[in-house]
Amino acid sequence: MPSTKPPGGTRDFLPDDIRRREYVVGIVRGVYERYGFEPLETPAFENIETLLGKYGEEGNKLIFKILRRGEHEGSGEADLALRYDLTVPLARVIAQYQNELPKFFKRYQIQPVWRADRPARGRFREFYQCDIDAIGSTSPVVEADILAAVSQVLADLGFDDFTLRLNDRRVLNAVLECAGVPAALHGEALIAIDKLDKIGPEGVQKELEGRGIDGAATTACLEFFQGFTRDDPRGHSAIDRLRAFVHGHALGVDAVAALDAIVRLADGTPAHGRIRIDPSLARGLSYYTGAIMEISVPDLAGSLGGGGRYDQLVGMFLGRHIPACGFSLGLERIIVVMTERQMFPAAAVSVPVEVMVALWNDETRSEALALAAELRRTGLRVDVYPDSDKLGKQFKYASGRSVPFVAILGDDERARGEVALKDLRTGEQQSVARGEAAAYLQQRLRSNQ
Amino acid sequence: MPSTKPPGGTRDFLPDDIRRREYVVGIVRGVYERYGFEPLETPAFENIETLLGKYGEEGNKLIFKILRRGEHEGSGEADLALRYDLTVPLARVIAQYQNELPKFFKRYQIQPVWRADRPARGRFREFYQCDIDAIGSTSPVVEADILAAVSQVLADLGFDDFTLRLNDRRVLNAVLECAGVPAALHGEALIAIDKLDKIGPEGVQKELEGRGIDGAATTACLEFFQGFTRDDPRGHSAIDRLRAFVHGHALGVDAVAALDAIVRLADGTPAHGRIRIDPSLARGLSYYTGAIMEISVPDLAGSLGGGGRYDQLVGMFLGRHIPACGFSLGLERIIVVMTERQMFPAAAVSVPVEVMVALWNDETRSEALALAAELRRTGLRVDVYPDSDKLGKQFKYASGRSVPFVAILGDDERARGEVALKDLRTGEQQSVARGEAAAYLQQRLRSNQ
Repeated sequence: MPSTKPPGGTRDFLPDDIRRREYVVGIVRGVYERYGFEPLETPAFENIETLLGKYGEEGNKLIFKILRRGEHEGSGEADLALRYDLTVPLARVIAQYQNELPKFFKRYQIQPVWRADRPARGRFREFYQCDIDAIGSTSPVVEADILAAVSQVLADLGFDDFTLRLNDRRVLNAVLECAGVPAALHGEALIAIDKLDKIGPEGVQKELEGRGIDGAATTACLEFFQGFTRDDPRGHSAIDRLRAFVHGHALGVDAVAALDAIVRLADGTPAHGRIRIDPSLARGLSYYTGAIMEISVPDLAGSLGGGGRYDQLVGMFLGRHIPACGFSLGLERIIVVMTERQMFPAAAVSVPVEVMVALWNDETRSEALALAAELRRTGLRVDVYPDSDKLGKQFKYASGRSVPFVAILGDDERARGEVALKDLRTGEQQSVARGEAAAYLQQRLRSNQ
Repeated sequence: MPSTKPPGGTRDFLPDDIRRREYVVGIVRGVYERYGFEPLETPAFENIETLLGKYGEEGNKLIFKILRRGEHEGSGEADLALRYDLTVPLARVIAQYQNELPKFFKRYQIQPVWRADRPARGRFREFYQCDIDAIGSTSPVVEADILAAVSQVLADLGFDDFTLRLNDRRVLNAVLECAGVPAALHGEALIAIDKLDKIGPEGVQKELEGRGIDGAATTACLEFFQGFTRDDPRGHSAIDRLRAFVHGHALGVDAVAALDAIVRLADGTPAHGRIRIDPSLARGLSYYTGAIMEISVPDLAGSLGGGGRYDQLVGMFLGRHIPACGFSLGLERIIVVMTERQMFPAAAVSVPVEVMVALWNDETRSEALALAAELRRTGLRVDVYPDSDKLGKQFKYASGRSVPFVAILGDDERARGEVALKDLRTGEQQSVARGEAAAYLQQRLRSNQ
């Protein structure tokens, strides 16, 4: 017998898992549609040359490759590869359907991706990505709209303590340049600065110097970035501070103005009061060209999602730049935090079956099915016990599955045109005219929740 | 530049495609949940030994195999394989979680599967399966419940001319045995009988004889099966005819009684009047052990879905038999027929964006975003034009996307606390107090549909 576990790094989603996931996805989808994003789905695999070389040397190794079929199977040659993210397929779609898609294409895409990472706690080989991207405009309206949409998703999910950290790649470069960090060492400096919360200013100072940043630049960096974490400034005062620091750096001044525009534009939207300018925010991916953003909540070390502007990536298959800005929500992390905080409403995680119709005996099976049909017609979720087991056994089964009501068509009830309805939560049983059973159950189920 | 088409046999689903698909899936899911089925999802790939040998020699060849990662990559060895159907993963899940799942586990699963078939019109390498299965009972209540659920799905989708063809593998065997066809030739006989509609009785007669069935058996088969197609009998009279024909064949008589029970049980459910006993229905798959069923509509040569009882398959990873009955809906075919018949309601396929907020100029972008937020709060689907282009260009863009309303915050409107709302369907424009804009739009959008 082979193992019956799912392959390493993948998961089976049992009914309760799916209900939680569907609850979150339903809210995400609803908000994104209200924001004018349209759904897109692409195949699970792409031609291998579409993916190779798009994710760097490390990425190439993590791509799952599919053996060419047919007579070539023995050669070990791969011609297809599993989707690694949702961005490269989007770039392909934009090239392929450029004449059918609107000029400003806003799409959401919620699909699994696969990475041949070493499986570990919280690191999967199959996981969902949940992306929005707005293609075709360089306007800061796009960033503000995305920040608003993401804020609305979090608010609708019940988060009231999230922060949208916002920065701009060009501002980051300008700040480091003004601090005297040479361009070649920007990456090194950011790694050190990113640890300010964890190892404190002395630790960061040592690390900056250890990474080859000179004393003056180290002091300038520390002074500037410490100021931000210490005061936790929000909104415009942070902008003023940035503007003062990059004063004289023309590109930097423009980029700070762009950042300022985003914050002002988002002010009348659900992102209001959520944005915190964080000049140390860097985001790992190298392809960002402007604004970068990330969602934080206090009880999670990582982020619930992130994104930014990347004007040179989506046009890769067209050989020209197409402006784009996107955001990816971390579905798995959102579910983890919501589960820990017990944020799922009872209806989203509760038992699916509301009424079980018991089988009185073999002769009345037909009536049991007919009763189930009547109840289902009113929207009730109804199961029929399939075997004519003893009633006690049937009750025990329903109770074990947390089904709130059992309906019984006993001989007496049938003779009177009634049905007995037992509330397994209270033990109470009542006979109700058959035609009124659905209304009675609906009323009891809604009022007892 | 690599090709930007999706790989052969796969499809990109653009927004309109997804909306149609989601409309169908939403109805399917809703009905299955009312029938007490619970959702399950399994990983896209399985360990290769889980799948190999489960689908026969031909099936083995059609399984997509994934190269083992890491240092073994060069060896051409495959250790994972893409999901080929939803039944083998279900069998694995039942073995793995037998203590967590209810005794009568009813699950639905709607996920893509992959087959390395030669791509052709209507034959894909990636397609969705949409399965229900009820595990754990041999009662005919299960078959009746499944026929009822499937009927309700079709009714809710708007089909009013579907037929549920019903047969039983054991009845089929008994009929052929009673006709004098030796067991070894049952398969051959069925291939010929299946063509009765296409090539007529003379054609079938020739084919039966060509396939080695003797004259007496050929005559008996023709007489029996022709009777069924000629009279198109429904319900119990077909049962009587079957009972008479297999009279004396003990297993056959029992199996006819089981078929009769299913028809009677389904009578009080949405399957009422839909079931047609079709003793020539065979279903390709070899694993069925009892009832077999298929949905037909007049304008489709194939079926919209099919299923049956298979009591020896789901327990394969446990090494014992577990009774099961299932049904698979053909999502792609349902969408094809519904599209041809124009069965999608306007709301399911219409434009997603209801209102586009135009940008009057750069100074009022912030107000445009705030207006969008106000409208979205009431559930309207709203887009914001991102650039301060000429209004004419913005109107043209909205019109090209079939957006019904454009909202404009012109200088005059802003001065009066109003917003101009242009109905692009009629050309009519009206100024409305800003606080009443959402209600006005809701009313106009709902009444004009």
